Amino acid sequence: MKFEVLTLFPERYEAYINSGLPAKAAKKGLFQIKAVNLRDFADPGRGGRVDDTPYGGGPGMLLEVGPVDRALQSMDRSGPVILFTPRGKTLNQRMVERYATLQNVTLVCGYYEGVDERVALNLANEHVSLGDFVLGSGDLAALCLIEAVTRLLPGYMGSDQSAVEESSNLEGLLEYPQYTRPRDYKGWLVPEVLLSGDHGKIREWRRQQQELITKQRKSHE
Amino acid sequence: MKFEVLTLFPERYEAYINSGLPAKAAKKGLFQIKAVNLRDFADPGRGGRVDDTPYGGGPGMLLEVGPVDRALQSMDRSGPVILFTPRGKTLNQRMVERYATLQNVTLVCGYYEGVDERVALNLANEHVSLGDFVLGSGDLAALCLIEAVTRLLPGYMGSDQSAVEESSNLEGLLEYPQYTRPRDYKGWLVPEVLLSGDHGKIREWRRQQQELITKQRKSHE
Repeated sequence: MKFEVLTLFPERYEAYINSGLPAKAAKKGLFQIKAVNLRDFADPGRGGRVDDTPYGGGPGMLLEVGPVDRALQSMDRSGPVILFTPRGKTLNQRMVERYATLQNVTLVCGYYEGVDERVALNLANEHVSLGDFVLGSGDLAALCLIEAVTRLLPGYMGSDQSAVEESSNLEGLLEYPQYTRPRDYKGWLVPEVLLSGDHGKIREWRRQQQELITKQRKSHE
Repeated sequence: MKFEVLTLFPERYEAYINSGLPAKAAKKGLFQIKAVNLRDFADPGRGGRVDDTPYGGGPGMLLEVGPVDRALQSMDRSGPVILFTPRGKTLNQRMVERYATLQNVTLVCGYYEGVDERVALNLANEHVSLGDFVLGSGDLAALCLIEAVTRLLPGYMGSDQSAVEESSNLEGLLEYPQYTRPRDYKGWLVPEVLLSGDHGKIREWRRQQQELITKQRKSHE
């Protein structure tokens, strides 16, 4: 699977792909990231600048449409062209699962006070938001999407089971609490049922916990 | 402001703080990140391993409670100790604004199939989720929180106005569309009203657009 990312900071993707599981998965050839530097498509004579002041006044600078358009023309747009914007659809696991079935996903990162609206209207065909909070650029949003998607690719995790049996899957229930050694840590104990060896009881307890936790969380939202 | 982060991958935070606005803000001394390597607190004789199999069976490995506890004892816990978990409260801009008023925030990243439940019950005092999607580790969630918070710190952005007048602020309305040069790009035009110089009309148009966009987005959710 290939991600093409339009960014002002290609080094952020190099760093990502050099650490931990993403590094292992990229070395195995499960995915690659091609980071395209937006500055290479600046208007001539502007010294790589790609921002300008908003029409109608207002604070801050906007990312221009021209450099984004020229850059995208040089990129693979056979899959969705996703713009990260607070006005986009909030990313969820169903969207992630769909992206994980694709060969190519193209990501456009926003910067500054915002992006010329013509990028959203004429160039991107999907608009995605990470949630109801504001980031300083689109890069962390792009990396979150890349990580959420790539970890579903077969072979990414040690056990393929793990990616399936987890929160945000399985009938919308959250995952049950889990415990590992030691049984007693400073008097904080592992629930007896998990040490019982009775797999029927364990399954039942986990299911009850899932329902409880999911209900509690929904009531907090 | 200081973030202390408990992580298996301190290099991810070094990379973050070496690029773009985060690098500038960190150099100005607006914030710092102290990344603490969880492996330094592994049980003796385990060669830095901090994971083990779940009690009661199941796929994958879990992060152990002991290393997390010992690491946190060496860290500043004067502010909130936040664990990233799918069961946590979904991050929103109100939470971000509260964190931005604090001197110290401590972040605990999860790994593997999950984290021993005693970390959530006994060690962290806030549980945060980025949204209804699953990441491969807590690091990108931690970086998103750090970026959302630090960009609100006075002096982070070129113009302090920018951080205030934006989406997720101002009565829950999304931001209006913005345009910059050129007026005509391939026949894609800037709306006439923004070129009119009539600031009353521009204000009115922007307000209408905010209401329209906010309504449209809510109906998509």
